[in-house]
Amino acid sequence: MTDTALPFDTASLDRLAQVVVRTGLNLQPGQDLVVTASAEALPLVRRVTAEAYKAGAGLVTALLSDEEITRARYRHGHDDTFDRAPSWLYEGMAKAYGNNAARLAIVADNPMALSDMDAGKVARASKANSVAYKPALEKISGFDINWNISAYPGRAWAQLVFPDLDADAAQARLAEAIFAASRVDRDDPAGAWVAHNAELAARRDWLNGQAFHALHFRSSGTDLTVGLGDRHIWMGGASEAKNGVVCNPNIPTEEVFTTPHKDRVDGTVRASKPLAHQGTLIEGIEVRFEAGRIVEAKATRGEEVFLKLIDTDEGARRLGEVALVPYASPISESGVLFYNTLFDENAASHIALGQCYKDCLGGTKGLSDDEVAALGGNSSLIHVDWMIGAPDTDIDGITVAGERVPVFRGGNWA
Amino acid sequence: MTDTALPFDTASLDRLAQVVVRTGLNLQPGQDLVVTASAEALPLVRRVTAEAYKAGAGLVTALLSDEEITRARYRHGHDDTFDRAPSWLYEGMAKAYGNNAARLAIVADNPMALSDMDAGKVARASKANSVAYKPALEKISGFDINWNISAYPGRAWAQLVFPDLDADAAQARLAEAIFAASRVDRDDPAGAWVAHNAELAARRDWLNGQAFHALHFRSSGTDLTVGLGDRHIWMGGASEAKNGVVCNPNIPTEEVFTTPHKDRVDGTVRASKPLAHQGTLIEGIEVRFEAGRIVEAKATRGEEVFLKLIDTDEGARRLGEVALVPYASPISESGVLFYNTLFDENAASHIALGQCYKDCLGGTKGLSDDEVAALGGNSSLIHVDWMIGAPDTDIDGITVAGERVPVFRGGNWA
Repeated sequence: MTDTALPFDTASLDRLAQVVVRTGLNLQPGQDLVVTASAEALPLVRRVTAEAYKAGAGLVTALLSDEEITRARYRHGHDDTFDRAPSWLYEGMAKAYGNNAARLAIVADNPMALSDMDAGKVARASKANSVAYKPALEKISGFDINWNISAYPGRAWAQLVFPDLDADAAQARLAEAIFAASRVDRDDPAGAWVAHNAELAARRDWLNGQAFHALHFRSSGTDLTVGLGDRHIWMGGASEAKNGVVCNPNIPTEEVFTTPHKDRVDGTVRASKPLAHQGTLIEGIEVRFEAGRIVEAKATRGEEVFLKLIDTDEGARRLGEVALVPYASPISESGVLFYNTLFDENAASHIALGQCYKDCLGGTKGLSDDEVAALGGNSSLIHVDWMIGAPDTDIDGITVAGERVPVFRGGNWA
Repeated sequence: MTDTALPFDTASLDRLAQVVVRTGLNLQPGQDLVVTASAEALPLVRRVTAEAYKAGAGLVTALLSDEEITRARYRHGHDDTFDRAPSWLYEGMAKAYGNNAARLAIVADNPMALSDMDAGKVARASKANSVAYKPALEKISGFDINWNISAYPGRAWAQLVFPDLDADAAQARLAEAIFAASRVDRDDPAGAWVAHNAELAARRDWLNGQAFHALHFRSSGTDLTVGLGDRHIWMGGASEAKNGVVCNPNIPTEEVFTTPHKDRVDGTVRASKPLAHQGTLIEGIEVRFEAGRIVEAKATRGEEVFLKLIDTDEGARRLGEVALVPYASPISESGVLFYNTLFDENAASHIALGQCYKDCLGGTKGLSDDEVAALGGNSSLIHVDWMIGAPDTDIDGITVAGERVPVFRGGNWA
């Protein structure tokens, strides 16, 4: 846990802490900060804390978790405990966010940490936590405050991603991949983020100006038309929270995204990367849509889990998000499968089954569920991203008049 | 942080976790537990969590701290931040204790961790924390719930205690000392604690039966008569919290203690060990009392800090506690100065300047401040223990009739 023992470049970790505080959070003088992180991520949490105070933070409060503590619960906990959550702690977090504290989550845990535990207990505890966490999460998902999710190269995660390397080498490789994806492997990360945000904003503004009726994806195994929601808005990169602070909620981020029309998706699509879902790897997904709904689905591995997933509810067979990511992006070029959505969804253009982003519809916030549905917004208990972008992906924008405009050619912006 | 890297016997750590949960907390089936600990103590926190769930715990919630995070605040924090505390978190803890959660604090930090920081900022932050923590602390100090403080051998702490050893050797020595003091260096720690609690109860009951008017301490440099509070009660070892659970609030513990009479302390006393106070070492303390009040005081090292301490308020020159600890106890025999009250106060008979224990007076709980004062109970903002027991300490009990009864001879129970 001491820096001297870290098998990777700590100067990049210094720069990551700066980018997280200045670009990711854009923490304001006097503003409090709540950090949730694995204790394993302490080398980054310490640097973030120092950077936050240098930026004039009020109070920085770190809530540190530990995989082994979590696993001890599933291993030894009495059955009654799995329907409960520490609501006093979640209520406190909601109170902090209600008082304008910024929120940082640092991802470091092994995505498969609970895959050998009782799935029923994990699901029950997850549900109880979701219920207790809801008042806090609403402040985040409602964008009341500036927030950010970033990553630290945890050792167990690294060994999952690089199973052929020893622990130190795997951690070093994951660190390199995170630093590159987060644009801190260079002299001027802050400048790189200004340029990157400008590029994402230009893509977003161009797409919003085009106001396409649909997108047409073509690549090997894919011929899919994705109708876009009525009065949809493309989002991506830096955004302004309701407290007036412009932040980058995800580091890394490569996507511009919007909400498709739940009834206007047709054709076939083949996943371009495996999907890690609740501890299971799903590979070779192929799906056919008719009038927005999946009518045929198969997978070469994990098919049962995938079929169960799309049967969660009616909305689970329809799209809630479409996102454009060029193949020429740091994450994609690394060729690494991270088993973590923060990275994998930024490696290739993707679609998500399930719940839509309401803020991407209608141009105003606070639409009712009926209004969202009338504009084509899908609703579901799930929101699962999967990658469909490939090196040969061509995308056309189709206007209301039926004209075609090249958007992607050969996997990248046209 | 992984077990394989620990330079000490982890089987003793397993036993310590069991003793903490079963004897220290006596955690009840279905009862929640809140653990505060340094992240460095994770090897113990993980074991305690597993033992707690095995004992039928409801939810175990660990709040992990980190010295470097704390130090980052003092190093880089804006001046405004030092009068604030994360009240949302402390209020949450108070709520958990109010719902009958047990409380465990694991001590592992370097006692001198903040000694190179701005003392004014440390004092201001400490005061702000005390104010915010008060609702939670009152549930603990009022003994509403079962609670315990135990220790884990932190590396920086170990190097302070054993400055001549390398880091691994120092940590191993501190671990040995903690395990011995906590009675987990043997085959049947639970049985050892039953026997030890029985012994402390017997001492306590004998002293309560005697109902001495005063104690007379004699050793080299010491000739001190300590009047005891009216209707004083001796306490020590396992005690019953208001929630009906019998627990051992301190592991280790060797003391039986009561409240002296604030106006009836006379004579001279020499400290038998150095006193570590707020990052300063005070050595060679010699003090003369008249009618309960210190009228002369000196020290061979840190005298200025000591004189400032006893000038905190009027009650800081009077006694709030007297505790009897035999010289033949595991901590004393280790010869180690821990720079930590949890250990050092259990190495020798001691007195404390300042605030008294109200529960040791009057035989009923909930006395008013005036009633406490009328019985001889002292009040002050401070409560600072210092060691006066030595290998040659003789103690006589003096009855109301003036008869003398041997209590200690040659440092141990007569």
